[in-house]
This record gives sequence, C-alpha cells and structure tokens, in this order.
Amino acid sequence: MRPSQRQPNELRTVTLTRNYTCHAEGSVLIEFGATKVLCTASVEEKVPPFLKGKGEGWVTAEYGMLPRSTGSRMRREAASGKQSGRTQEIQRLIGRSLRAVVDLKALGERQITIDCDVIQADGGTRTASITGAFVALTDAINGLIAEGKLAASPIRESVAAISVGIVGSTPVLDLDYIEDSGCETDMNVVMTAAGQFIEIQGTAEGEAFSRAEMNALLDLAELGIQQLIEKQNAALAA
Amino acid sequence: MRPSQRQPNELRTVTLTRNYTCHAEGSVLIEFGATKVLCTASVEEKVPPFLKGKGEGWVTAEYGMLPRSTGSRMRREAASGKQSGRTQEIQRLIGRSLRAVVDLKALGERQITIDCDVIQADGGTRTASITGAFVALTDAINGLIAEGKLAASPIRESVAAISVGIVGSTPVLDLDYIEDSGCETDMNVVMTAAGQFIEIQGTAEGEAFSRAEMNALLDLAELGIQQLIEKQNAALAA
Amino acid sequence: MRPSQRQPNELRTVTLTRNYTCHAEGSVLIEFGATKVLCTASVEEKVPPFLKGKGEGWVTAEYGMLPRSTGSRMRREAASGKQSGRTQEIQRLIGRSLRAVVDLKALGERQITIDCDVIQADGGTRTASITGAFVALTDAINGLIAEGKLAASPIRESVAAISVGIVGSTPVLDLDYIEDSGCETDMNVVMTAAGQFIEIQGTAEGEAFSRAEMNALLDLAELGIQQLIEKQNAALAA
Amino acid sequence: MRPSQRQPNELRTVTLTRNYTCHAEGSVLIEFGATKVLCTASVEEKVPPFLKGKGEGWVTAEYGMLPRSTGSRMRREAASGKQSGRTQEIQRLIGRSLRAVVDLKALGERQITIDCDVIQADGGTRTASITGAFVALTDAINGLIAEGKLAASPIRESVAAISVGIVGSTPVLDLDYIEDSGCETDMNVVMTAAGQFIEIQGTAEGEAFSRAEMNALLDLAELGIQQLIEKQNAALAA
Amino acid sequence: MRPSQRQPNELRTVTLTRNYTCHAEGSVLIEFGATKVLCTASVEEKVPPFLKGKGEGWVTAEYGMLPRSTGSRMRREAASGKQSGRTQEIQRLIGRSLRAVVDLKALGERQITIDCDVIQADGGTRTASITGAFVALTDAINGLIAEGKLAASPIRESVAAISVGIVGSTPVLDLDYIEDSGCETDMNVVMTAAGQFIEIQGTAEGEAFSRAEMNALLDLAELGIQQLIEKQNAALAA
Amino acid sequence: MRPSQRQPNELRTVTLTRNYTCHAEGSVLIEFGATKVLCTASVEEKVPPFLKGKGEGWVTAEYGMLPRSTGSRMRREAASGKQSGRTQEIQRLIGRSLRAVVDLKALGERQITIDCDVIQADGGTRTASITGAFVALTDAINGLIAEGKLAASPIRESVAAISVGIVGSTPVLDLDYIEDSGCETDMNVVMTAAGQFIEIQGTAEGEAFSRAEMNALLDLAELGIQQLIEKQNAALAA
Repeated sequence: MRPSQRQPNELRTVTLTRNYTCHAEGSVLIEFGATKVLCTASVEEKVPPFLKGKGEGWVTAEYGMLPRSTGSRMRREAASGKQSGRTQEIQRLIGRSLRAVVDLKALGERQITIDCDVIQADGGTRTASITGAFVALTDAINGLIAEGKLAASPIRESVAAISVGIVGSTPVLDLDYIEDSGCETDMNVVMTAAGQFIEIQGTAEGEAFSRAEMNALLDLAELGIQQLIEKQNAALAA
Repeated sequence: MRPSQRQPNELRTVTLTRNYTCHAEGSVLIEFGATKVLCTASVEEKVPPFLKGKGEGWVTAEYGMLPRSTGSRMRREAASGKQSGRTQEIQRLIGRSLRAVVDLKALGERQITIDCDVIQADGGTRTASITGAFVALTDAINGLIAEGKLAASPIRESVAAISVGIVGSTPVLDLDYIEDSGCETDMNVVMTAAGQFIEIQGTAEGEAFSRAEMNALLDLAELGIQQLIEKQNAALAA
Repeated sequence: MRPSQRQPNELRTVTLTRNYTCHAEGSVLIEFGATKVLCTASVEEKVPPFLKGKGEGWVTAEYGMLPRSTGSRMRREAASGKQSGRTQEIQRLIGRSLRAVVDLKALGERQITIDCDVIQADGGTRTASITGAFVALTDAINGLIAEGKLAASPIRESVAAISVGIVGSTPVLDLDYIEDSGCETDMNVVMTAAGQFIEIQGTAEGEAFSRAEMNALLDLAELGIQQLIEKQNAALAA
Repeated sequence: MRPSQRQPNELRTVTLTRNYTCHAEGSVLIEFGATKVLCTASVEEKVPPFLKGKGEGWVTAEYGMLPRSTGSRMRREAASGKQSGRTQEIQRLIGRSLRAVVDLKALGERQITIDCDVIQADGGTRTASITGAFVALTDAINGLIAEGKLAASPIRESVAAISVGIVGSTPVLDLDYIEDSGCETDMNVVMTAAGQFIEIQGTAEGEAFSRAEMNALLDLAELGIQQLIEKQNAALAA
Repeated sequence: MRPSQRQPNELRTVTLTRNYTCHAEGSVLIEFGATKVLCTASVEEKVPPFLKGKGEGWVTAEYGMLPRSTGSRMRREAASGKQSGRTQEIQRLIGRSLRAVVDLKALGERQITIDCDVIQADGGTRTASITGAFVALTDAINGLIAEGKLAASPIRESVAAISVGIVGSTPVLDLDYIEDSGCETDMNVVMTAAGQFIEIQGTAEGEAFSRAEMNALLDLAELGIQQLIEKQNAALAA
Repeated sequence: MRPSQRQPNELRTVTLTRNYTCHAEGSVLIEFGATKVLCTASVEEKVPPFLKGKGEGWVTAEYGMLPRSTGSRMRREAASGKQSGRTQEIQRLIGRSLRAVVDLKALGERQITIDCDVIQADGGTRTASITGAFVALTDAINGLIAEGKLAASPIRESVAAISVGIVGSTPVLDLDYIEDSGCETDMNVVMTAAGQFIEIQGTAEGEAFSRAEMNALLDLAELGIQQLIEKQNAALAA
C-alpha cells in the first residue's frame, strides 16, 4: 500500500481553479493532492528578437518555487542571483510541451508567457505545472478570440503530464514527495489527448530499469493522462 | 468619493487566513481588498555569521511579487539575476519593523525568516506584508513555545502597518493601486499596539506637503492601525 | 552635552566648495563636520528609454562610499558585483528629492545624473548628499542657460536635507556617527525652502517613538534646513 | 538514404583516444564522426560540503563548447557570465549517468570531476560526452587502484549513450547535426552494458510520436549502445 | 642546464597545424613543446556598436583554459560566472597585438574574433596564442579574398610573441611552466617580422632587474621571434 | 612644444598630501598635474585564505575611477556589476609593484589593502596610483611600528612609476590625457630607488616601435622616477 493509501494506478485528487487571480489573461490554480501551483498566462503583443517580423508567435514558460513551499526553506532564487539548473530544466520542459500543441503561425506575432509558481510542493510540481498551464493558455487564447484578435484557436490539441515511477519494485502513478524521494526510477510523461508522446524523461535514481518496467510505467502514464485531460475539459467547460 | 466607494477614513476589507500552506512554522494569507500576500515564517536553529556565539537570535524578511501579480507582467527577479532597489527597500523595512517588537536575546540563537510573496497586487503590498508577517511570526514563536524550545514569548507587542496619502487634496486611508498612482503624497506608517511609531516614510510624489497635512495623515494612520491590530488579535484568537 | 560639544539644536560646520573637480557640469564638495561628499552633476543630451520622445527630461542620482571612507574598510561594491540595499535606498532617495523640485518638462529631453561619492564618512552622508547635490544640479542647469540650451531654470525651489534623532531621550539635530550608532530614533527629513516636506523617513532603532517626540524632531529639522538653505544660497551667490 | 550515406541503424565512425592530454588522471578524446569531445577526469581528495564526513565519494561533470566548435560562433559562456540552461541540463545528465554505475561508498571520500569540452560539434555531443566520460572515469579509477588508494574498482558496470530519432518518418540511429535540426522526434538513451536503462529523454520536436515509434527508437538505441560498449572495452584493453 | 635540457637561447619544438577543426574560417593548433592552444578565427559581417557606420572593421580576441589543461584542475570560468583578471589581461593583449598589424579600414565593416583555447598548458600560453592567432587570422582573411569579399589583404606584416626570463640569474628563451614558476623576471615580447616592438611586458617576480638584464632579454626575444615568424611562414606556405 | 607647454623631459607638478582623510592607516592624495588620486592604506590583522598559517603577510590593491572623474561620465562599475578588464589590469599592477618592495615574511600575518580612487583624471592615473600608494603604505607600516606591532620596517626600498611615450615621433615624459590619446607608443615603467625595474609595459598604439625608441623612453623614465622618489622622500620627511 502506498503512503497515501492510494492504489498503484491511482492519481491524487486533482483540482483546477480558473480565474484564481484577477490580472492575468489566464490564471489557474492546479492541485495534485497537496501540490499547489499557480499558472498564469500573460499575453504580450510583441515577440522575442529572433522572431521579429516572421509573422509567428511564441509561447514560453517560467517556473519558480516560493521559498517555503517545501519542507525546509529553500534559498530565494532572486536573492541568490540565478535560477538553478533544475529550475531552468523545468521551465524549458513546460515551454516545449505547450509549443508542441500550438500552431505558432496561427497565433500571430504575439507572445504568451506562462508563469508556474509553486505555492506548496508535495512532488509532481512539473507535471502539475504543464497540466495547469495548458488550461491557463487556453483561457488566454479564448480571450484573444473574444476580443476579436484571433479568428480561431491556434491550439491543435490538449496536453497534460504526469509522473510515474518504480517504488519498492512496484510501478506507481503520480508520485508524491515521499515516494519521489525513495523511488528507484522516476519518469515524467507529457502526452496529447490523442495519446501521442510529447516528452518522456525517465531516470534511474537507484538501479537501472528494464524495457519491461518502462512499458509498465508508460501504461500507467497513459491511464493518468487520460483522466487529467478529462479534468482539463471539465474545468474549461465550467 | 473614492474610486472604491470608501470613506476617506475607511480601510478595505482585511482578511487574515492562518495555516494557508502546510510546511511553514507560520503561514498567513493576508488580504487588503484585492491585495493578497502570502506571509510564511521559517524557523532555523542557526544565526547569521555576524551573530554567531552571541546568544542572540535574528528576525529577517524577504519580499517578492509573482510576475503576474500586477496589471502587466513584471520581469521575474530570479531571471533578471537581481532584486530591484524597491524590493530591497521593502524587505529591509519589513525586517526592521518586526525586529522592533522582538526581544532578540530572549529568542535565543535561532533565526526566523519571513517570506512575503505577493500573489495579487492592488496597492499597499508592503503594509499588508508587515501586518500579515506579524501574525505568521507569532504563530512560529507559539510553535517554539509549544515544542518547549522557548519558555515565554520574546514578542514585546503587536505591530501593524498602513498607508495613508493625499489624493486630490483629501487625506485618505489605505490607498489602493488607482489612488496610489495618482496621489500627491504617499506615507507608510508602522505602529505598535500602544500607538507608538516604528517607521514613518512619507514621500511627496507630486507637490511637497505641509506639517498640517502630515498631522492629518498620521491621525488617519493611527485610526487604521488600531483596527488592524484588532484584526490580528481576532485572527490569533481564532 | 553631545560628544561633539554641540547644543542639541546645533548643526556641525557646513562647507560647500563649488568647482571641486574640473570635468563635471556641476561639482561640489559638501562637508557636514568630518563628513565629506563629492557631488557631481553630469548633463547628457538623451533620456532613459521610458521617456524617449515624451519631451521630458530626467534627474537621477547614484551614491557610493570609497572603501576606506569609514572607520574600518568596507568591501568595494564594484568588486562584490552589486550595490547593497542601503546604497540603492539612498540613491533612490536623492533622485526623488531632486526631481521633486525640478519641472522635468521644462528641462527638455536631457538627463542630469548626480553622483554622490563619500570621501569621508561621519554620519549624515545621505542628507549631506542631497544638500550638496542640489547645488551641483543648480550649477549644471545654470551652465545650460549660459550655453543657451535652456531659456529659464526648470528648478522650482531649493531643497536640502538633515537628520534628526533621539539620543539618550534628547532630540538632537544633525547626528554624527557616534550619535547615529547609539540613537533610539533616527529621522531624515528633506524639505523645500518654503518649509514643505518632500520626504520624511523616521525609524525607531531601539524603542518606538511617540507623536510628541516626532513633533520635537520635526521642529529641529525645520530649523536645520533653513540654515542649510542659507548656506546653499550663499555658496551659489559666491 | 541519410545525408551521411549511412543505413538507418548505422553508427558514425567512433574513435576513442586515451591519454589525449597529459595532466588529467583520465583524458579521452571521443569522436562520433565529426563530433569531437575531450573528456578529462580529475581526482580530488575532498568531497562537496553536503557529503563531508559521510564516508562517501562523489562523481560530477561539467560541459562546455568551444565558441567556434559550431557552424557559427557561439558566445563564450565565461564572457556572458553564466552557463545556459542547455549546458546545465547536459552536465547534470552526464553526472547522473556516471553516478548510476559507481558505488559512491566504495569510492571513499574523494571527488572525481569529468570535464566534457566540445572541440568540434556535429550533433550528439551529449551522448559522445557520456560515452567518453566513462572511459576517462575508468582510467582515473584504475590510477587510484594502481597507487594503492583503492583496493577494488567501485565501478559496477559500463555505461554508454546514443541518440536516436525520427527523420522524415524513418527511425534512425546516431543523428548528425543536419538530421538533428530537421528531425520530428529526438531521443537520447543512456544504457548499461547489461542492457538496462539509466536515462531516456525523448522530445517531439515537430509532431508527437506514438508508442510504436518509441519502441522502434529504443530497439535502435540498444543496438547502438552495444557497439559503443564494445568500443569502450576495446579502448580500455589497448 | 635547463630542466628541458635546452640551451638558454633555444625555443621548444614549435608546431603549427592548420585546419585543425572544420567550422572556423581559420583554425590552428599551435604547440610550444607541451603547451597546446587551439586558435580559431571567426568572421562576422558586423562590427561592435562603437564602430557602426564608420567603414572600419575590428579584430578582437578571447582566451580560455580548459579546466584540466593544467596540473591541478582550475575552476571553469563559465561556472564561476566571470573571467579572471588574468584572462582579461591576456585576451586584451592578444587583441591589441593583432590589431597592430591589420589595417582596420581596409578590412571593411566586419569583425574577426580569435578564440584562443588552451588544451594543455606548460608555460607560454599567451605567447603561443598570439603566434598561432596570427596564422588563423591570415587564413580567415585569405578566405575573404578567395570569396571576393576583399581585394587585397589588410594585414601589414607578421606578428609573433615569445616569453623570456631570468632563471637562476641566466637569461633564457621560451620558459616552460617549471621555469616560469621559479623565475626572477618574466617578460613577454610581441614583435613584427621587421623586428619592431608591439608590446613589451616585463615583471620582476622576485628581484628587480637591471637595464643590462633587460637588454639581454630583448636580444633573446628578437632571436626567438625571428624563428617563430619563419615557422608561421612555412605553415602558411604549406 | 607639448600641449601643456612642458619640455619633453619635464614632469607635471607633483604634489603629495598625507593624511588627506582621517580613518585610514595611510591616506595620501597624489596629484600629477590635473590628475588626482586618493590612495588609502588599510591594515587588517588577517590574511587571504591561501596564506593562512604560513606566517606571511599580503599587500594588495584596488583601483576605481569616480564616474565623473573623466571628461564624459563613465558608468559606475558598482552599478554595472563588474570591474572592467582595464580596472583589473591596473589594480593587479599596483599590487605587484608594491609587493616587489615589501618583505612579506617580515610583515607578519596581516594584510594591507591599498585603495586607489581617481578623483580627477588627466592621464597617468596608474603611475600616480603606484607612486602615491607607496607613501600611503609607508605611513601604514610606520603606524604598525609606532604601535609596537612591528619591530622594523619590512619595506626594502622605495618604488615609483611614470609613463613615457612617443608623441608625434618625440619621446616625452609623463603624458597627460591629450598626449595619451594621440600617442604612437605608450609605456608605463615602475622602478625602485636604486634604478632597477619592477615592471615595464610598453604598447604600440599606432606604429610598432624600435629598440632605439625604447631606449630613449627608458632614459626618460629613469629621469622621471628619480624625481618622483625625491618627492616621496620629501613628503615622508615632512
């Protein structure tokens, strides 16, 4: 039995709260159990220098953790003067995952920046970020359509992400912090609504893993992603 | 009449939510109207180098704004690689205000760091931070007492803060963003429960102000602080 | 009796030496007793990006201390790679104080930068900086008039600054370093020639201070500022 | 047919030159076709602070590209003042991959740092780095055994890495730069001699990929890794 | 007798390998004994801001050492976030030395950047860098002529550099690391083919040196430079 | 005739003012004509980490220019976040020059830091810095002797520095800014009272220079240094 009393193939309770803050064009608080991430989407009518004049838009992401979102206080990155390698890895992953489902030409010369700020952490902050960011992005794009700035949505399909891992030789879905700290293999999977992969990042923390174990993990991930996409759809329909 | 339909001497709705997040020794969400700041208190059993071996503790604060807590997105300070002068000014002010009511010798050789992170901004983030930080600090210290690490509280008295200003020649209490942007004079006042001053910072944004105007502003501030201290007491008694 | 044998309401000897260095458009060495600050004004025919094309000018300030201007050597900020929070606070204060008395539209699209560099420190460096900076700024603006670049002065009135504080329960004027280190309350006041306030920054270093004490401090400050404005006028008339 | 005239399942010519430079405890130039990476292993008899006194060692890696290792000159990271997110991602991956095959307790309280510096780049620099780094690490550890500092090797098994990808709907092995720039899916695989996975990082650059495509890519990777491990063994036996 | 068994006026074996890497417009590996420096020349059709629109070109240099090019590992400058004073001194010297022999007007509005990266260090890296950089620069310029972008070479004459020093009271040519560490005086000399000086930098490491000693050192330097220029000519003729 | 109406072998007026500021253990304002540099010596009873426990002392230097010490305002290095290559070169030169005349073992485990801050610049700031720094260092060391912390002076002999250069084919002594900007060759020479060299740094700004020209420059430098050493002696005897 898992520390959280969940079945191996069971997600934590997932909640998506839209319009969580008032200024951003999209603002979603996503909760995966005790993990809470605020995802805001900001639209700017300009693009980064490398895209200027190309008639294309850009979607990018930034990630941060509040210093005491974790069990012991982490140093504030603004105070230490740089973002850690981990932070950069995660925000690059979020940005790539979102761009994979957006037609950047159809977006037009504008940039949407997704900020994912972890209010409370209990494992899975990067997968919660991607899943919530997609909803915030959709809200921002729907706003552009409502304002008449876009005729149709440049979003091609939904995207969501989940972690899977091997804990004590059992493949499990959606690891919380205690499982994540002690697992043998940890894998983050980003998938589309159609069940295709956008990113797979698997790491043997302890022992190397076999092809069979990887297949079991991917089965779990597909199961979880389907449920997350339903949650996103329900939130957007509300 | 003020943009928010308030009387000149009327605070916005003030809410204090304790235990807003689960990891920190004190965690308070404070709201001054639409301004929302998460204040967490983290206890560490060590002191900064300049206090090592002196038998004294330390209370310090850090301040940050989420990039989209504001009307248009601000650059993330962790990404730009440094904290702005404004951020440093505010976090130094919060730290000094709290240290003024704590007996650092009685705290013992430990440090309490208060992180004030603005989730949503509508003016008054520094005064909300100080007012909320005091409650988070109190919770953290009560925790030390409950654990038997402290015999009695080193907190000497309550502290709270409010902004006052002259808007269109009228002195008003607790400016929101729209008032703050257009005011002639802006003053932040930090006071104790006993009605003594800890900090006064008044700035003529437009025209210089007279001694009489300053007195009117201080009268308003005293009025507001008393109400804030009552709110703090009520929250801590809950 | 004060350590410097002064009366409570007595300034230190104040000296203003114009044209202290030869390159700057304004260059003033100001001395408040043993405190010596070199204030230079540099005119540039361009404005910062946020003002480009708005037909307005800008006045800004930077502040620094020579590493051995103080009793023990301070680390050089250029070597440590950043300006401290204190430095930023002070230079922002100097800039705001000067802008409060200049009609930026009348200045035209040019920037004047005031550099305040502390050669020797004995308390009161920020108030000496503001007081000296105003004279350097006036010299630079008079130069623009002499060159025919400005028809009339955009300076609306004089500005000067002084510190006051409570030392051993006595309110005193113009604290030197030894008083500043041991005072209970420290207040910096920036005023115009007409006796209006531009900035008030009061801090309880030890105990909180009362409304009555604040009034006594402001009375002292008004007295001191009047004398400083006379010194500025005399220096400019020389 | 591929731009390099290779079959889909064909590696580029792989060369490993040991003792390429004279100072390092291990020094290997690895070539994957036109990609050339110098991997040096440096032994230090100390560990990072977080391991002090724990009786364990550490293996870590740093990665860099010479500014003109690429088709157009890249800015020197030492000059721009920070390592890019990509650099950090790669050096973290190299370090994790090596630590996965080393018994850090058996290494004792010492650190081995692997520097992977790209002399010439034509795709696959991270996989070449891991494959070469393992040989440099082995040389360094064999040196410690020869000096009597270690009784037995703490290396548990060999590790190597290769890229696979989908180019124009064909799964191919060991992408060069021209293929990498135009591929639909790019995957880096790190495996042990026993055929277990240490890391899998797959990214859809263009379209999302299916489970079947992923399986085809992993088949290719296994094939390539076996050949690389043979090359490593041959080089170490020489 | 010198540690390397050389005569006092004897250079180490000097080797110049052109086209060492494939991407750069000029790419030369220069070896002075065990010292190996890769010098690449990169042509860009733009100039730094201060030269924009002036019809002139620019030649500049950057210098770096691979972390384990030396006996014990040096910290990677990209990781520490800045280039050391020594690095900056050397790259400024290389740039000045090359610009002294190039007619920048005749080069046209383009920039050539020479990267000198030390693969293996055994003393004399800066003089090897200058000597090799000149050959890389010549190759890049000959490439521009071959492409028809330049009608004639803007290079006025050859330049090379060598170190000389006083080791145990004997003036010697081309110091290796062991001599450099223990020498009394160390001098780097940059000269043209015509025997004129471009730079002389002499430093008393131990005792001050006399005019007579300096003359002896310059005699040695002239001798060495002549041989280096012959080596450069031979390499370019190959 | 030179712009300053001086003979080719004529120094500018040199003034040394000891005890220019009150806090430092040595404080000298040196003027070479319009060039004014404040040199302070700070004694600390500790050494840098690489000397800890070796029974040796250290002498080091830092250099800075006030932003408006020059004709047009330079960016403040503390604001730009780093010291320029030129600044680092100069402060390294000052430090080496002083260490060359001090017996560091005899100094004992303490550090003397010389800060050279340019108040007004008109060419020759680095040579004025070295010449003034020696006097400040001597004052600091004499203070240690007076306090009984040192029995005898660890200074072996005097050191001073001067610039020489070729301006319009004439070798001249002690270049001011206008000459420095237009010279063909620029050389800084650091010498001891006994006429031995500590540093020679000669640079062809325009055309390369001959051995004969170098000899003429060194003759001028020797002449100038002798006069500077007399000035130092006179100042120290006053």
